[in-house]
Amino acid sequence: MALEDRLLELAAEIPPLDEAAAEEARGRQLWLTKPPGSLGRLEELGARLAGMAGGCPPPVPESPAVVVCAGDHGVLERGVSPWPQAVTTAMVSTFCTGGAAVNAIAKTVGARVSVLDVGVAGELERHPLLRAAKVRRGTGDLSRGPAMSREEAARAVMAGAGVAEELVESGGVDLLVTGDMGIGNTTPAAALISAFTGHQPEETTGRGTGIDDETLELKLNVVEEALELHVPDPEDPLGVLAQIGGLEHAAIVGVILTGAVYGIPVILDGVISNSAALVARALAPHSAGYVVAGHRSTEPGVRITLRSLDLSPLLDLDMRLGEGTGGLLAVPLVQAAARTLKEMATLEELGIG
Amino acid sequence: MALEDRLLELAAEIPPLDEAAAEEARGRQLWLTKPPGSLGRLEELGARLAGMAGGCPPPVPESPAVVVCAGDHGVLERGVSPWPQAVTTAMVSTFCTGGAAVNAIAKTVGARVSVLDVGVAGELERHPLLRAAKVRRGTGDLSRGPAMSREEAARAVMAGAGVAEELVESGGVDLLVTGDMGIGNTTPAAALISAFTGHQPEETTGRGTGIDDETLELKLNVVEEALELHVPDPEDPLGVLAQIGGLEHAAIVGVILTGAVYGIPVILDGVISNSAALVARALAPHSAGYVVAGHRSTEPGVRITLRSLDLSPLLDLDMRLGEGTGGLLAVPLVQAAARTLKEMATLEELGIG
Repeated sequence: MALEDRLLELAAEIPPLDEAAAEEARGRQLWLTKPPGSLGRLEELGARLAGMAGGCPPPVPESPAVVVCAGDHGVLERGVSPWPQAVTTAMVSTFCTGGAAVNAIAKTVGARVSVLDVGVAGELERHPLLRAAKVRRGTGDLSRGPAMSREEAARAVMAGAGVAEELVESGGVDLLVTGDMGIGNTTPAAALISAFTGHQPEETTGRGTGIDDETLELKLNVVEEALELHVPDPEDPLGVLAQIGGLEHAAIVGVILTGAVYGIPVILDGVISNSAALVARALAPHSAGYVVAGHRSTEPGVRITLRSLDLSPLLDLDMRLGEGTGGLLAVPLVQAAARTLKEMATLEELGIG
Repeated sequence: MALEDRLLELAAEIPPLDEAAAEEARGRQLWLTKPPGSLGRLEELGARLAGMAGGCPPPVPESPAVVVCAGDHGVLERGVSPWPQAVTTAMVSTFCTGGAAVNAIAKTVGARVSVLDVGVAGELERHPLLRAAKVRRGTGDLSRGPAMSREEAARAVMAGAGVAEELVESGGVDLLVTGDMGIGNTTPAAALISAFTGHQPEETTGRGTGIDDETLELKLNVVEEALELHVPDPEDPLGVLAQIGGLEHAAIVGVILTGAVYGIPVILDGVISNSAALVARALAPHSAGYVVAGHRSTEPGVRITLRSLDLSPLLDLDMRLGEGTGGLLAVPLVQAAARTLKEMATLEELGIG
């Protein structure tokens, strides 16, 4: 249980947002060279960034990185996705060679890409972008038994935490984006969202990357069976993660917790990241203060989760790809929120105030 | 009338979107390494970019620039804004010295800032970022007479066109963002939107940068009076611009037309840019194919205008600042739409297809 203790220690290190700094930012917004409130949602985002940084103005994040956490899913045997498991391995290789959407979008916003294998079933060649930390080769079928052991869940969380820590400590990263890859991973996401929000599987289970009515019906049954089998207890987040989660979901929890410990913003991508944020909050309530909802994916569980986390998504572009793509697109918005607060002149300086 | 002829010549040069290239892009999207449709609105945007460029994949815009067009407004005498006219001059100076929101956001997205004085009432010092092309020192009060002469409107349009042409030809700019500065300029914007869409002033007149109920009532009366006085004819767009427009609105028309002539995307900022896009479309119907709605500002006329132009805004962040700020924030989205189309591998290359 040493590992679980380390995890709880990490979670306990997260400070609450600095409300005084956030308030100072709100005051400062009123005196910048613009009509009060005219930067809309960027203004409140800037205040949150000040709260995370513990000072106003907050630093402008200049070195963003996306951590794409990858794993496979035993539940795929149930037929919840039309894509074969081998696609996870193929896509992780594509992230490394630069041919995926996440690479194109990361390049656009100047973010580095870091790929973490916590549970891909297939073999992966070594690559500078890939951190190999395979906890196991895919989860077990959560509808028939636990997805993984408690120890494995903790190892996957700490693997995500380790990558994030290295990026911040050695890489100078000051803005994290969470990403995921794992064929079948919207099924555990739906189960996690139901477990932590109390919403029924009909409300949290969606079409993922695109499934037909029949598969959706089957997927819904699978999520229901999993919840009935395990009766997950939201008071025991690590236990829930082990029962009905995924290895990449767990790793993202670690990325979120670590970003929060360092006081840097963590931009969430879609439904996988959103579900992980619920686990992170259950482990460490203050962690919710450091997450930014990058976008609203089309998965139905996303609205429920973001409402539960009290987050408004910055973008709403009907995306449902994962990989961190939607989160990355929000990077410039977070940077702009910080930069306007830091670099704009004040009305007094202009002689208008 | 030589100037007006040049303007009409410019408008006539705009080619329709290349539908074959757009269709090719839609086909290509289906074979990239992602589930079909999973990049959401970026996919259709990518197809439009292919249509603008006349080829698939379209080039990735690497050199964006915002053109902030500035002018003053005689109608300010009527009390339509609480801000004094001198603020226009002060803000234009701030754009040059780098202390405004547009500077912070342009820096964030890697865009250069170009400021065009087509009608600022005050004196402005020379500055490398400022192009001085003052047509007159502010418009006349549009509620009591024409805002400007037809010749002046044409000159302002051609001034905007000239800056855009120079940015593209000499500066290598491949993505234009329209911006505006002019205390009182939401009043002519509302009048233009009513004139070109047929919607009543109650629907098109808003609070601008933030006015109280009493001022809003007065502003509404002013817009109504202007429309009653001039009875603008949407079939004569230059005439309408002269009667009830603004010098910066006219300059933005020139930026849009020029971007379209070069086949490069023009991202619209808020209500001023939106109203100018209506004028541009009336002058050159094909121009509407090259504009991208960067964001939805909170002004009521914006929804009406974007619907009329058949555009969906990429961002909706409750912003109402102008200067090009909302348009600039959409730059990475446009770049991402092009880059995913150009740089992603295909499923065949992965052996999945």
